[in-house]
Amino acid sequence: MRQFFLLLLLIALVPYIGLSKNAPVDVMPLPQSVKIDQGQYRLEQSFKIAINGGGERLSKATTHFLRGLDHRTGLWFPQQFVRQATADAAFPMQVNVQRTGTLEVGEDESYTLEITPSKVILTAPTDLGAMHGLTTLSQLVKSDANGYYFQAMTVEDAPRFVWRGLMIDAARHFMPMDVIKRNIDGMAFVKMNVMHFHLSDNQAWRIESKKFPQLTAKASDGEFYTQQQIKEIIQYAADRGIRVMPEFDVPGHATAILEAFPSLGSDQNATAYQREVNAGIFDPTLDPTNKATYKFLNTLFTEMAALFPDPYFHIGGDENEGHHWTHNPSIQAFMAKNNIKDNHALQAYFNLKVEKILQKNNKKMMGWEEIQNPEIPTTAVIHSWRGENEGKGPGESLVTAVQAGYPTVLSNGFYLDLLFSAEDHYNTYVMPKQLTSQKEKDLILGGEATMWSELVTATTQESRVWPRTAAVAERLWSAADVRDVRDMYRRLDIVSHQLEIEGLQHIKSREGIIRLLANGQETNALHTLVRVSEPMKGYTRNPMGTMYNSYFSFQKFADACAADAPDALKFKFLVQDFKAGKLDKLQDIKDMLQLWQANDAKLQQVIAHSPMLKEVSGLSAQLSEVATIGLQGIDPEFERSADWLNQAAKTLHHARQQGGRCELQVINPIAQLIGLSEQQISEVAG
Amino acid sequence: MRQFFLLLLLIALVPYIGLSKNAPVDVMPLPQSVKIDQGQYRLEQSFKIAINGGGERLSKATTHFLRGLDHRTGLWFPQQFVRQATADAAFPMQVNVQRTGTLEVGEDESYTLEITPSKVILTAPTDLGAMHGLTTLSQLVKSDANGYYFQAMTVEDAPRFVWRGLMIDAARHFMPMDVIKRNIDGMAFVKMNVMHFHLSDNQAWRIESKKFPQLTAKASDGEFYTQQQIKEIIQYAADRGIRVMPEFDVPGHATAILEAFPSLGSDQNATAYQREVNAGIFDPTLDPTNKATYKFLNTLFTEMAALFPDPYFHIGGDENEGHHWTHNPSIQAFMAKNNIKDNHALQAYFNLKVEKILQKNNKKMMGWEEIQNPEIPTTAVIHSWRGENEGKGPGESLVTAVQAGYPTVLSNGFYLDLLFSAEDHYNTYVMPKQLTSQKEKDLILGGEATMWSELVTATTQESRVWPRTAAVAERLWSAADVRDVRDMYRRLDIVSHQLEIEGLQHIKSREGIIRLLANGQETNALHTLVRVSEPMKGYTRNPMGTMYNSYFSFQKFADACAADAPDALKFKFLVQDFKAGKLDKLQDIKDMLQLWQANDAKLQQVIAHSPMLKEVSGLSAQLSEVATIGLQGIDPEFERSADWLNQAAKTLHHARQQGGRCELQVINPIAQLIGLSEQQISEVAG
Repeated sequence: MRQFFLLLLLIALVPYIGLSKNAPVDVMPLPQSVKIDQGQYRLEQSFKIAINGGGERLSKATTHFLRGLDHRTGLWFPQQFVRQATADAAFPMQVNVQRTGTLEVGEDESYTLEITPSKVILTAPTDLGAMHGLTTLSQLVKSDANGYYFQAMTVEDAPRFVWRGLMIDAARHFMPMDVIKRNIDGMAFVKMNVMHFHLSDNQAWRIESKKFPQLTAKASDGEFYTQQQIKEIIQYAADRGIRVMPEFDVPGHATAILEAFPSLGSDQNATAYQREVNAGIFDPTLDPTNKATYKFLNTLFTEMAALFPDPYFHIGGDENEGHHWTHNPSIQAFMAKNNIKDNHALQAYFNLKVEKILQKNNKKMMGWEEIQNPEIPTTAVIHSWRGENEGKGPGESLVTAVQAGYPTVLSNGFYLDLLFSAEDHYNTYVMPKQLTSQKEKDLILGGEATMWSELVTATTQESRVWPRTAAVAERLWSAADVRDVRDMYRRLDIVSHQLEIEGLQHIKSREGIIRLLANGQETNALHTLVRVSEPMKGYTRNPMGTMYNSYFSFQKFADACAADAPDALKFKFLVQDFKAGKLDKLQDIKDMLQLWQANDAKLQQVIAHSPMLKEVSGLSAQLSEVATIGLQGIDPEFERSADWLNQAAKTLHHARQQGGRCELQVINPIAQLIGLSEQQISEVAG
Repeated sequence: MRQFFLLLLLIALVPYIGLSKNAPVDVMPLPQSVKIDQGQYRLEQSFKIAINGGGERLSKATTHFLRGLDHRTGLWFPQQFVRQATADAAFPMQVNVQRTGTLEVGEDESYTLEITPSKVILTAPTDLGAMHGLTTLSQLVKSDANGYYFQAMTVEDAPRFVWRGLMIDAARHFMPMDVIKRNIDGMAFVKMNVMHFHLSDNQAWRIESKKFPQLTAKASDGEFYTQQQIKEIIQYAADRGIRVMPEFDVPGHATAILEAFPSLGSDQNATAYQREVNAGIFDPTLDPTNKATYKFLNTLFTEMAALFPDPYFHIGGDENEGHHWTHNPSIQAFMAKNNIKDNHALQAYFNLKVEKILQKNNKKMMGWEEIQNPEIPTTAVIHSWRGENEGKGPGESLVTAVQAGYPTVLSNGFYLDLLFSAEDHYNTYVMPKQLTSQKEKDLILGGEATMWSELVTATTQESRVWPRTAAVAERLWSAADVRDVRDMYRRLDIVSHQLEIEGLQHIKSREGIIRLLANGQETNALHTLVRVSEPMKGYTRNPMGTMYNSYFSFQKFADACAADAPDALKFKFLVQDFKAGKLDKLQDIKDMLQLWQANDAKLQQVIAHSPMLKEVSGLSAQLSEVATIGLQGIDPEFERSADWLNQAAKTLHHARQQGGRCELQVINPIAQLIGLSEQQISEVAG
């Protein structure tokens, strides 16, 4: 009877195509080539590392690796520092480097790692490559009953793309030094090499200017980086093989500048500007027809260009709708006089002037895709960020830019702040199929994950960036055909654990919020709900950008949740496996459903003593309701009437309602489990 | 039968004297006077605060309070900043201040807080007092089914002692900026007002000197505070009403200085000195007979004195045994020539010279009790740190110092690094009974909790300092007769939760280590063991100071544990209550014992896959064994033979064995529960 029932459940199968195969190593990004050999290098207290070649940076990185290994294993290696002078052929681990790499686009980052039962040999043309080899090795530590070891193997590795970045937005919410440093640690651990630092926007200006101290005095609420701190960040990143590229968004996204210098604005009626505390696209814009604008930018960008050694300088340039230009007669007159046909052309006029300032400072201009214009020289880098949401199809702006001869970097598909799954980011194609010539392909420099901070604070930023950024890093480093989503998630869990050991707060910060919300009570039931809930995706959590103010608390239920709700993901895969014929998964499925069914009664007791949790009372009830549906649906004794199926569809539909700006992630797999199609559910919703 | 058995269990009762009574408010330190009134002030989104008087500091602190309240309640108050200009009598909360306080010993820190159903009025002579009132109010937030509120009441409060400090040792292990800032946040939250910054020792020199850059170049491993960072710390502390007093330990504890400047040392045979990586008392000492020593100190201390605005300057002066002086013929000759009778007198000679340097810089000297000497002027502050361990009886050096006319600060009894319980610190008497005259009493300035860092890193420092420091803070702020230990622990739990909300990492850091140790596995069983285990106390974890090197990992089992193991404490109080006749506690006792009994089987599976946990395999087994004893002992069906009792005593004795440098804290309460005396257990141990 039971077997028969199981067969019944399997009848309406979605074809199961997700055949997953474990990668040869639990490393992320997956190396280009791994050859597993016989035997293991066993880690003992006598482990020692010698360095041949390289400089101070490699010495620091190797010491960090050695001490990290000590943390991971507790073996207490007597070698305290791995110094450049430490060249001893008898040491079991050897790091061999030909030269110190430069932090430039296209520098050699390759390495070879040979692990035998008696030796660990890391070889690389540059220290940057060797440092990547060290992070690979960090991720290769395994243990068994006898202790810790590295599996014998040969790894040959090099990045697929030269530009692998993370954009940190410190404008909407300030990110203190330790948050910046931890993000850089995380980037280094997944072999990223560009930190794009978004330092100004409508909400604030975040960097000390000695030429224009008014910027921070009037437009930072006292939260900004001193130039000394910026130097510290640049050095910290450089020590980890990471370039730091600043962004100062002009001519739009510049209300902070205008609060300090209102006379540079384009609104003919404004004598003052006030920074935004909401999210969105706003009208205030620098006046491109005012000579004072360029005088100001020349002084400011010259000062900033000297501070950041990176050859690239990002000027933003996005989302300028030019309303203030259109409504300003003097700007209109200027356009007519100079034969500037529209606002886009006026922005190109502005960008060209800015480009001259940057050129004088030996900087290459980079800007969001809106800066593309025939008049802009092809030394500029086009940063592609829009895609099918705007109806252009994924990557279209990337193709347009490359075909016009611009080097490009992709961020469309990598918007971490929208809280889509790691799978979504992972499935992004960086190299458009339309590009066939090598010359065109070479113009695709790589990509950047972007972490806009309208809805995150220093407390939650890391829990949005990590571990998902590791999936983006793999997309940008590993071969194009590394695409097994199940295996990616398997390794993402491991790397997330390792990132915490590296010092990241992405797990801890959420636990802290959960304790805050539980108001001193037991947290288990709350954890159970968090583990199946995700914040509303895209721009839906913050309708019209006005539900939240930037100074509000972001330590609510939605902030305790993150993308890739782990139990929902686990459940989804269990259902997939079960539907693919792995009948032994049924017990795990039942266990999870029972946990959820019983959870509401427990959680309601907690909610009763924590007013902040009231907003998820409904969500908690919904979870129990859908779990009941699921349990009924897999119960061989339960009679599935048409009425029941109809009611089940209604319940599942209802359970899609948000609570606490979050949504349950188990609806679809439960529907799949009991054989209800999306269409059936929609119909009852009708 | 059951009742009879329970009576039997109660026969050999230790007299139960711990009658505990809840304090009127869950605030720590407990205010001097609290009068609870009728009604509540209900917190609504319309809550707003006006400030009358005070300056920028009060405005910042009040904004911090307001935003903190927003975090705690999620109410999203529209008031973003509370500015000085915000004086509006209609606002429900009013902060009234007469003047801006100065950061000097003895400044008025009192405040009055009146909460009615319609108003919250905070009044204080100085902004410092008002800021204390704000932390009280932060701790008074309560919730019920309808939301958040303050109970109506009148609080009148002022500190008992003027010097309430925390010493942070950044020498043995460097403490990054964020750790320092979080400790300062914690101090402010429990109304402490002195951060004593231990910046140099045998292990390192941690502050930039522009006069002697060799100090950090040679003796910091690159981990030190720039002068800019020191200014940032001082400002951060000042914004929170906290003085920062530096300590530069001389003439002993100065190997770091000697590594940079070996010619200033007293060892006639040494041409070089090497910093220590172990803990302990070491011989290297500045040469007090060398004029170059004073020239060096004059330049160095003049530079440092200018950097720290505080009028006090701590010169250490402890634990100099003078071996190198005794064995140096030239120093001996100098002593003979100058009629200096012994090493103590030579140190006094040295101190007097240093005192002149400080005087010239308008600094008052402070030093550990060894500096006391008739020749030292009574403007110096004696820092008392030794007690009965040295056979002098608690506080004797305090009495000696006061009787000689010195102002004194007590740290004996407040050594956080020794990992004694909060109760131990709490039970310390700061005011010796021997002192009766007001003049003498006034010389007791207060006390300092000290957090020596030989065995802590940036990761674990907070979990040792917090929450226990709140108990020390209460001892130094609240009335002498506030001594209810049970109620202190009850409130300590609450304040610990609040400290996490303030941003402290004391809870999170331990969770991170537990996840590291579990090596990716389930953490429940490990948590259960952690919750009854404490690191070995006093100086026993690190025998001879040589088991650990300063660069070793401190993320082992002992580092995941802390003082006041919560389940052990809970169990102890349950047993106390039960023995005092509260028979209904038996079920809770049984539940805990059953949890422990079953835990070993679960934990051994985790240990099998985490080599770092092997060291606690025995400890885990011991917990199950003693739990079994406890369960047998309270089982009315179980026959307690003489043999069994003998075996039980043996098992309990054996379970005292350390594992992973930790000890189970449940042995004594289990023995008490089953009626075994300490003597009976010792006897079987033979």
